[in-house]
Amino acid sequence: MAKCLEPSTEYDKRYLWVDTLLILLIGLNVIALVLHSIEAIEQVYYQHFIYFELLSIAIFTVEYAARIWSCVDTPYYQQQAGSNMQKRLHYIRSPLAIIDLLAILPFYLGFFIQTDLRYLRVFRLLRVFKLSRYSRAMQLLLNVFKEERYSLFAAFSVLFIIMLVAACAMYTLEKDIQPEHFSSIPQAMWWSLVTLTTVGYGDVTPVTGLGRLFGGLITIVGIGMVALPAGILASGFSEQLSRRRQFFQLALDQAFKDGKFAEETEPLLKRLRAELGISHTEAAIMRELMEKRYQTLHFNDTAGR
Amino acid sequence: MAKCLEPSTEYDKRYLWVDTLLILLIGLNVIALVLHSIEAIEQVYYQHFIYFELLSIAIFTVEYAARIWSCVDTPYYQQQAGSNMQKRLHYIRSPLAIIDLLAILPFYLGFFIQTDLRYLRVFRLLRVFKLSRYSRAMQLLLNVFKEERYSLFAAFSVLFIIMLVAACAMYTLEKDIQPEHFSSIPQAMWWSLVTLTTVGYGDVTPVTGLGRLFGGLITIVGIGMVALPAGILASGFSEQLSRRRQFFQLALDQAFKDGKFAEETEPLLKRLRAELGISHTEAAIMRELMEKRYQTLHFNDTAGR
Amino acid sequence: MAKCLEPSTEYDKRYLWVDTLLILLIGLNVIALVLHSIEAIEQVYYQHFIYFELLSIAIFTVEYAARIWSCVDTPYYQQQAGSNMQKRLHYIRSPLAIIDLLAILPFYLGFFIQTDLRYLRVFRLLRVFKLSRYSRAMQLLLNVFKEERYSLFAAFSVLFIIMLVAACAMYTLEKDIQPEHFSSIPQAMWWSLVTLTTVGYGDVTPVTGLGRLFGGLITIVGIGMVALPAGILASGFSEQLSRRRQFFQLALDQAFKDGKFAEETEPLLKRLRAELGISHTEAAIMRELMEKRYQTLHFNDTAGR
Amino acid sequence: MAKCLEPSTEYDKRYLWVDTLLILLIGLNVIALVLHSIEAIEQVYYQHFIYFELLSIAIFTVEYAARIWSCVDTPYYQQQAGSNMQKRLHYIRSPLAIIDLLAILPFYLGFFIQTDLRYLRVFRLLRVFKLSRYSRAMQLLLNVFKEERYSLFAAFSVLFIIMLVAACAMYTLEKDIQPEHFSSIPQAMWWSLVTLTTVGYGDVTPVTGLGRLFGGLITIVGIGMVALPAGILASGFSEQLSRRRQFFQLALDQAFKDGKFAEETEPLLKRLRAELGISHTEAAIMRELMEKRYQTLHFNDTAGR
Repeated sequence: MAKCLEPSTEYDKRYLWVDTLLILLIGLNVIALVLHSIEAIEQVYYQHFIYFELLSIAIFTVEYAARIWSCVDTPYYQQQAGSNMQKRLHYIRSPLAIIDLLAILPFYLGFFIQTDLRYLRVFRLLRVFKLSRYSRAMQLLLNVFKEERYSLFAAFSVLFIIMLVAACAMYTLEKDIQPEHFSSIPQAMWWSLVTLTTVGYGDVTPVTGLGRLFGGLITIVGIGMVALPAGILASGFSEQLSRRRQFFQLALDQAFKDGKFAEETEPLLKRLRAELGISHTEAAIMRELMEKRYQTLHFNDTAGR
Repeated sequence: MAKCLEPSTEYDKRYLWVDTLLILLIGLNVIALVLHSIEAIEQVYYQHFIYFELLSIAIFTVEYAARIWSCVDTPYYQQQAGSNMQKRLHYIRSPLAIIDLLAILPFYLGFFIQTDLRYLRVFRLLRVFKLSRYSRAMQLLLNVFKEERYSLFAAFSVLFIIMLVAACAMYTLEKDIQPEHFSSIPQAMWWSLVTLTTVGYGDVTPVTGLGRLFGGLITIVGIGMVALPAGILASGFSEQLSRRRQFFQLALDQAFKDGKFAEETEPLLKRLRAELGISHTEAAIMRELMEKRYQTLHFNDTAGR
Repeated sequence: MAKCLEPSTEYDKRYLWVDTLLILLIGLNVIALVLHSIEAIEQVYYQHFIYFELLSIAIFTVEYAARIWSCVDTPYYQQQAGSNMQKRLHYIRSPLAIIDLLAILPFYLGFFIQTDLRYLRVFRLLRVFKLSRYSRAMQLLLNVFKEERYSLFAAFSVLFIIMLVAACAMYTLEKDIQPEHFSSIPQAMWWSLVTLTTVGYGDVTPVTGLGRLFGGLITIVGIGMVALPAGILASGFSEQLSRRRQFFQLALDQAFKDGKFAEETEPLLKRLRAELGISHTEAAIMRELMEKRYQTLHFNDTAGR
Repeated sequence: MAKCLEPSTEYDKRYLWVDTLLILLIGLNVIALVLHSIEAIEQVYYQHFIYFELLSIAIFTVEYAARIWSCVDTPYYQQQAGSNMQKRLHYIRSPLAIIDLLAILPFYLGFFIQTDLRYLRVFRLLRVFKLSRYSRAMQLLLNVFKEERYSLFAAFSVLFIIMLVAACAMYTLEKDIQPEHFSSIPQAMWWSLVTLTTVGYGDVTPVTGLGRLFGGLITIVGIGMVALPAGILASGFSEQLSRRRQFFQLALDQAFKDGKFAEETEPLLKRLRAELGISHTEAAIMRELMEKRYQTLHFNDTAGR
């Protein structure tokens, strides 16, 4: 059964079908949630929304159970030690399984807890995160975020401290003239956040001369606050790229270890190139540079004999 | 005839003239379209706009026909197999030919379909895309976009999901207090898009305490949403640059393959340098570094004899 | 006593405890400052705020005195020449000690100078900067800012000059139509800053045709003004990264100096890797690339014998 | 006389004095211009502004004449062929000399042309560009802009085309509902520029459902428009940095050309390091890496004997 749910090296049509259907269902769920909030539509198709919700819950519940049941057949868990039960308990605690659970849990909780159903409905949006299973580019993004988490955290700490300072200063400068906007520091924080992030709604703006002088300074600092994460992420993406290139270089070095290209490594290099997302041109250039280097070394070697 | 329309290695004055005239005509078409929308001008020069439109259509139609007819003489299609008819049919389906067709099609469709002419007029703007044929720097931009398309798509998927979550949350928090702005999720999406992109019109803003707390969080996330594509594109441009440098290095390696610079490769390297957009200084430094390396190897080589 | 305040190689539980408590106290101070500004809360808990302030001042004063007293026992000052008194005087002038002083000074000054206490209160926020002692990622940010200070200063100079030009031009173009917003250049500066930083409140916007044409131009220039620091910081972070990699490479070179890996350098490399923030994968790839290179050289060497 | 105006290798106190005074005078001119526009100040100090203007014009005229007269003594022009008159004519046409002329020309033109003096006054701001002579970091910025001019031009062309398309579409969608904001394409351009640059004043926003759908799309495209120049400039700054590093590497290679460091090149390397803006740490790492490489080669070399 795992073959329908998890990718495998052997091409499996059923796997592709089940995946496509699940992605489609998630998309329909999001559309239904959005349409449901429009009163005119909700009043007419009220019944249809309930039927669709029940169908979705049924399918997602079956999917969740099937994934837990079949997780032991995936290559990752086959290599792990432990009984099938232990593996399934381990899988249940993985992020992807938790997202799957959160997608259906609010519905079942609705039976036990008496609450405003409209608030519960919002949690259906969690289903959109089920998509994260399918995108590889998004996993690259997450990787960059993970690698740069300390720098990004520091950048947002700086943003937070500057926001506090700006809010305090503006509270002091403008609270007498605009008590409706700057009567407390938490209120002034709204202005300082909207300004530092360069969103600038304009619902709250300084009006005194001193307030505008200081506000102008904060808009300039805001440029830096936007530039910091851009710079950190740019550096993170470049690093990911250069690391993948280094990794491919390593494989190339291995292929050239006898001084000339080992033909039998060709298919392995091809697969590695695709997996690392290195372009054809790039790989060809790297290989040719390698060949030149070994020719030179060989030349010296022969001359030195 | 192809000589007037497509660039060739031999300098052809007629080609330059035709190109300049076509670029000029596209520019005039854009200016005419913009002026046409100003009522005061339109009422006075109504007749002139019609004459100019007819002239433009005539020239663009001739250009389109000429390009299809002469495409078989271009170097690219001369290397391809197949009859002239097949080549022309292939050319018609190329992006550049489709843009050329779209530039004139609305006019001819106007004869068959009865519709508000003013809406048709907007399609004339498509003519501006005919310019993409002429700019090489824009092709570099497109290249970077193409290489980074998966990362950019993932970034915009993240933006879309966060926009949905923000709209749902704000709809729940503010729909009772501001029913005119947050009465449905699609309406709340307008706010969340304007905030996440840091545009921040200010026509819709949260007013409740909880709404502003969450809204503030979304403005911070907005910084990340702006930083992501900036980071991806910065890494993409750097990669393009380093790849071109590697390519030039490869050519240099070839030129130095006998241990010293082969003078006959000089003109080839010059052309390559210009094509890859590597500066004079850069190329000179790379070559000198190369020379030093070979001198050292030669030195060792002699010592080892 | 220094063991409780400064990090040391030997793991010291008391050090960790004191640090955690101090960080907590700083956080509570910030929260108290923010809550204090909300009138409803201030009126009820007025007394509590005073008690908490007195307690904080007491602890921070003890901390300040303890740090000055014990600074001579830190590794840095033990290596310095001079008497203990000289070392303490030197420490008092260090940025971290000045921040510590500024955190308590306003309170003591309040006894001597008669002023509005609410303004003095804002200075309590300076305590948040005491946190900079504890974050290593923030020190990386500061390092990048320090390295790129000339470029960033130039970028902000360009911003300043363009802001001046934009304000002058808009003052000339709009002062007759909107005298309430553009009656003087300093007033027009508010508009030009808000526009160039892409904040765009919308409280002041050009309304004449010529004003909007010029204003549109300034919005485009604003993109460049945001892009400049982003580009400078991106390049700065990349440089930091490549320098740390080069540094690790240097240590690797040292470890391989006899042509094969010296096992005894293993723990040193491990610590260096952690300190430089280089990932496990990265370090493993670099070491393997090193090994390949030496194998090749060894191969040539043997052949040349 | 050139010694007071142009930097020279020999330290000249008079040169420093004249420069500082000129920079001060430019700063005072900018402040005077800004204060002059404030009516309350202008009415009281009217006479003083005129005196200061006359003094500034006198000094700048003398400076302009002195620079033209003494340009022949600068190292650059001493190396050039041609008579002193030819050199001076050549200098007059250089960008820096033109800026110097523009700083005083409006005043002298005022005698011949009868026009509103307040408009002429704005041109005094051109004097601020005289500062560009003194900043080296700004010359680095200009260099990056110059190197990336084609990419930046392409990016702004894309911005222009998308702005046109957005304006046309919004004009079609909203002109009937908001004739006061979208009655013509040039009027709609104001909205599309303000949105694409993420400034987002909010004075003009779409109100129809279709208009907001399309407007939301344009805000997303706006993120890309901001990211493009950020990416281009980030890559440009990185390239400048790596080129300077390559250049220093070249000099190091030269210093090591006999297999070990040539001590006599030490001062040259020091000056080069300072000129290229490479940090001490960076330079030390590069040199040590170099030493290791030569030790290894030497080791092989000895073994091969």
